[in-house]
Amino acid sequence: MAFVKAASDTEQWGVFELELLGVEEGNPYTEIELEAEFRHADGQAVRVRGFYDGDGIYRIRFMPDAVGAWHYRSYSNSAALDGFEGAFACNHPSGNNRGPVRVRGGYHFEYADGTRYVPVGTTSYGWAHQLEGLAEETLRSLAASPFNKIRMCVLPHYSPFSAANIPCYPYVGEPLEEWQYERFNPAYFRIIERRVEALLALGIEADIILFHPYNKQWGFDRMPPEADDAFVRYTMSRLGAYRNVWWSLANEYDFMAGKTTDDWDRIGRIVADNDPYGRLCSMHNGFVMYEHWKPWITHVCVQDGQAVAAPGRAVLLRRVYGKPVIYDEVCYEGNLHFVWGRLSAEELVSRFWRGLAEGTYVGHGEVLRPTNESVDRVWTGIGGTLRGSSEERLGFLREIAEAGPAEGLEPIDEWFCTGVAGRPGSYYLFYFGEERAESWTFELPGKDFQLAEGTTFTVDVIDTWNMTIERSPVAFEAVRKGEYGYGDIYNRRVELPGKPYIALRITAVEEAEDPASKEE
Amino acid sequence: MAFVKAASDTEQWGVFELELLGVEEGNPYTEIELEAEFRHADGQAVRVRGFYDGDGIYRIRFMPDAVGAWHYRSYSNSAALDGFEGAFACNHPSGNNRGPVRVRGGYHFEYADGTRYVPVGTTSYGWAHQLEGLAEETLRSLAASPFNKIRMCVLPHYSPFSAANIPCYPYVGEPLEEWQYERFNPAYFRIIERRVEALLALGIEADIILFHPYNKQWGFDRMPPEADDAFVRYTMSRLGAYRNVWWSLANEYDFMAGKTTDDWDRIGRIVADNDPYGRLCSMHNGFVMYEHWKPWITHVCVQDGQAVAAPGRAVLLRRVYGKPVIYDEVCYEGNLHFVWGRLSAEELVSRFWRGLAEGTYVGHGEVLRPTNESVDRVWTGIGGTLRGSSEERLGFLREIAEAGPAEGLEPIDEWFCTGVAGRPGSYYLFYFGEERAESWTFELPGKDFQLAEGTTFTVDVIDTWNMTIERSPVAFEAVRKGEYGYGDIYNRRVELPGKPYIALRITAVEEAEDPASKEE
Repeated sequence: MAFVKAASDTEQWGVFELELLGVEEGNPYTEIELEAEFRHADGQAVRVRGFYDGDGIYRIRFMPDAVGAWHYRSYSNSAALDGFEGAFACNHPSGNNRGPVRVRGGYHFEYADGTRYVPVGTTSYGWAHQLEGLAEETLRSLAASPFNKIRMCVLPHYSPFSAANIPCYPYVGEPLEEWQYERFNPAYFRIIERRVEALLALGIEADIILFHPYNKQWGFDRMPPEADDAFVRYTMSRLGAYRNVWWSLANEYDFMAGKTTDDWDRIGRIVADNDPYGRLCSMHNGFVMYEHWKPWITHVCVQDGQAVAAPGRAVLLRRVYGKPVIYDEVCYEGNLHFVWGRLSAEELVSRFWRGLAEGTYVGHGEVLRPTNESVDRVWTGIGGTLRGSSEERLGFLREIAEAGPAEGLEPIDEWFCTGVAGRPGSYYLFYFGEERAESWTFELPGKDFQLAEGTTFTVDVIDTWNMTIERSPVAFEAVRKGEYGYGDIYNRRVELPGKPYIALRITAVEEAEDPASKEE
Repeated sequence: MAFVKAASDTEQWGVFELELLGVEEGNPYTEIELEAEFRHADGQAVRVRGFYDGDGIYRIRFMPDAVGAWHYRSYSNSAALDGFEGAFACNHPSGNNRGPVRVRGGYHFEYADGTRYVPVGTTSYGWAHQLEGLAEETLRSLAASPFNKIRMCVLPHYSPFSAANIPCYPYVGEPLEEWQYERFNPAYFRIIERRVEALLALGIEADIILFHPYNKQWGFDRMPPEADDAFVRYTMSRLGAYRNVWWSLANEYDFMAGKTTDDWDRIGRIVADNDPYGRLCSMHNGFVMYEHWKPWITHVCVQDGQAVAAPGRAVLLRRVYGKPVIYDEVCYEGNLHFVWGRLSAEELVSRFWRGLAEGTYVGHGEVLRPTNESVDRVWTGIGGTLRGSSEERLGFLREIAEAGPAEGLEPIDEWFCTGVAGRPGSYYLFYFGEERAESWTFELPGKDFQLAEGTTFTVDVIDTWNMTIERSPVAFEAVRKGEYGYGDIYNRRVELPGKPYIALRITAVEEAEDPASKEE
């Protein structure tokens, strides 16, 4: 039998890789089928697809989700690759490995180990296929940032700078000539892979964008359907085992005029069928909302700046879809002349808080063009150095969100009270946006029995821009006020600084006995 | 053969009725199947279901949608009813008959004759099954009102007043005893039918609510599935031929705890399968949004007061569903202590304008409790007399909307500008809500080529509450201002009265030549 390389152990949610030597003749990308079945000692089995990595080398990658002994066997239409068997030990996870992120409680996220995951993501479409120096700069920026997710393209993202610096292409062929879509260039994918691994080491989720419209100069936005499908399968075989991978079917899908709803349905099904791990999967829109009710969509990814520009909007899409919502493009912090690229840092940060106070999440992008540099040399295009002022404040937001209820923040009364989320009776986050209030009367929305009368609350006044938290000197005691809310027993008020971007965090000090028992 | 009664002619979109005499023995409701096929001289054929009307009488009702000769034949498992053939002439429509309402251009409505239909609907759940005097009072109120649609229940809507006055019940049996769900009471349905006919005569659409949760005192909210299905089929056979009928699967469907998504899917399919006319069909929610992407749903009916309480919200659901949106319950004008029943007339009217300025529609309800009368004696419960102040203003709104573009108002720039809808280049409706602006600089949103530079516009300042329209003394000339909009060539402003509830209607006086030719 041919050469085999395989680790004897890995850890839970790590990557086990099996390397096989096989045929080089013909076209291994199209002619050779290779899969392996991995079976845990307890009996559950997972089948994953392998891929050709050039030079006669084939690989099968697998993420074990259970500790213990795993056995595997390869299956192929090539005798040289078929029937390899072996075993490896899956150890307990180490370091920052908390497993892949998944949906929790309908509208939120958690790691597989149960730790809450609060997405504070950024966007850099083309960072992964830049030269090493720039990519390392990007990784240093990310390491020092609060971002725990990044939206990034697999296929190259065109700009004059990227075109001049791209290390290689995903297909055999040359720009402006015919690409050989049936022959991948493994060197290109190895680069993307190393980026995903580097993100994994930093604890950052890779929101992998399979298709995007920004490479018409190279033609990757209009490959034939068979090439699209082969690209999805190949990419998934290479990257799918990394626990930090999320699948984003496309960025601004509707800007790819050549693709129909049927095309996207087919691609969505291929992703679902080729994903043995149930990775998070979404679709990002331009002008036309995607049909997020499709079964392969795990959470709603929406471009819509307006949806978090004022209260009462973000919450609507939660209710429509019944899935977590990330407004993952709400215009970018920047200084471009395009309306989507000139948000102030204050406004971008404010949109994050608005999203949070409506039970949703928001994504970051930065298009700050440095002096004397071309417009295409910005973070969201190619990565590099973050130059904005929102980043630090988003770190502050992330800390506060992570310190909140593990189940996530839910709208308290989405029917009659906007801009407040939390957990009835124990935690409330109000966000006031651009209001410059000087005081706030202690009032909590909530119908009967949502909280126990007599519960005492502390109130933290949060200046989301200046990143300060000041606790109100008094503790408030909740009593029923009318049919739809609670007030303080002495009708006390909280002093506010008269500045914009203020949030309130209201936390129950001690819960009174069962609220039902308080009613007579 | 048995007795037959059939008209020799009817008009397009009128009701042709075939009356047959058949068996009375056994249970005709469950045992007898009766259909007829109606075939137009041009060849198209429609099959409709008949129904048992008691006393051995069977009826088949049919709405012909084409002028000319129609031939019919009955089909039944009862020999006495099978094989009746005949013909009738379908004449041109007369009077106010413009045919049934259907969807137009994705987000709007029109009559079958192409006339625009702007829904200005009201709600009176239980009006149809009140005693004659009260129902006639309701009809007089409607005749004098601007309302061209009414949401109404088929099954009785419980209140102490209704219970004390209900003329009869839809089933054989007595309250608090067992209903015989397999035996309808034709007398009850005849009453509902006469109400629908009376509405038709007034040119008012009947938005027929099949199920609702407000009759648990009688048990009609939790009939067995077979009874639900038979009820839907029977109701559709009786009412489906009236051109003013819309189907609403339920009111606050999610408040009917006994029904699952599968139940509602089954009911939705039954309605679609039993509707040969493609009537408008919707579902109304309580707290949980319905899956309006289901194929039997023609337009989105939403209860959500918040969605039209501020700009930028209503438009979101349009985009999500790609269907017309009617916010058909946005809280009611009223004086109840419930938060949903104490909107001021000003606020209700404002919500209508907000919906319109976002490319959507809004519905009316009134729960003004008169002095010394019980809370259940309000318009939205039982009909009677409209006592509110919104009605008149909604007539004013309807006039303005109907005088606008026939294609309906579309958001001009839903990505960066809320609260303005119209037709780029020719018509703009701005709504300012509670703002009390004293002037407005002439500025129209719009990207390249949306309007021809040099186009001259008149500006009407509309006081939506006081129902005045004042034309600005100057005509404004549009020139490009930046990348995202147009201004006046002399930067002129429109004087505003400094009052709330102001709208602007901006209309092109003459269109300049093709805008593309103006760009150099």
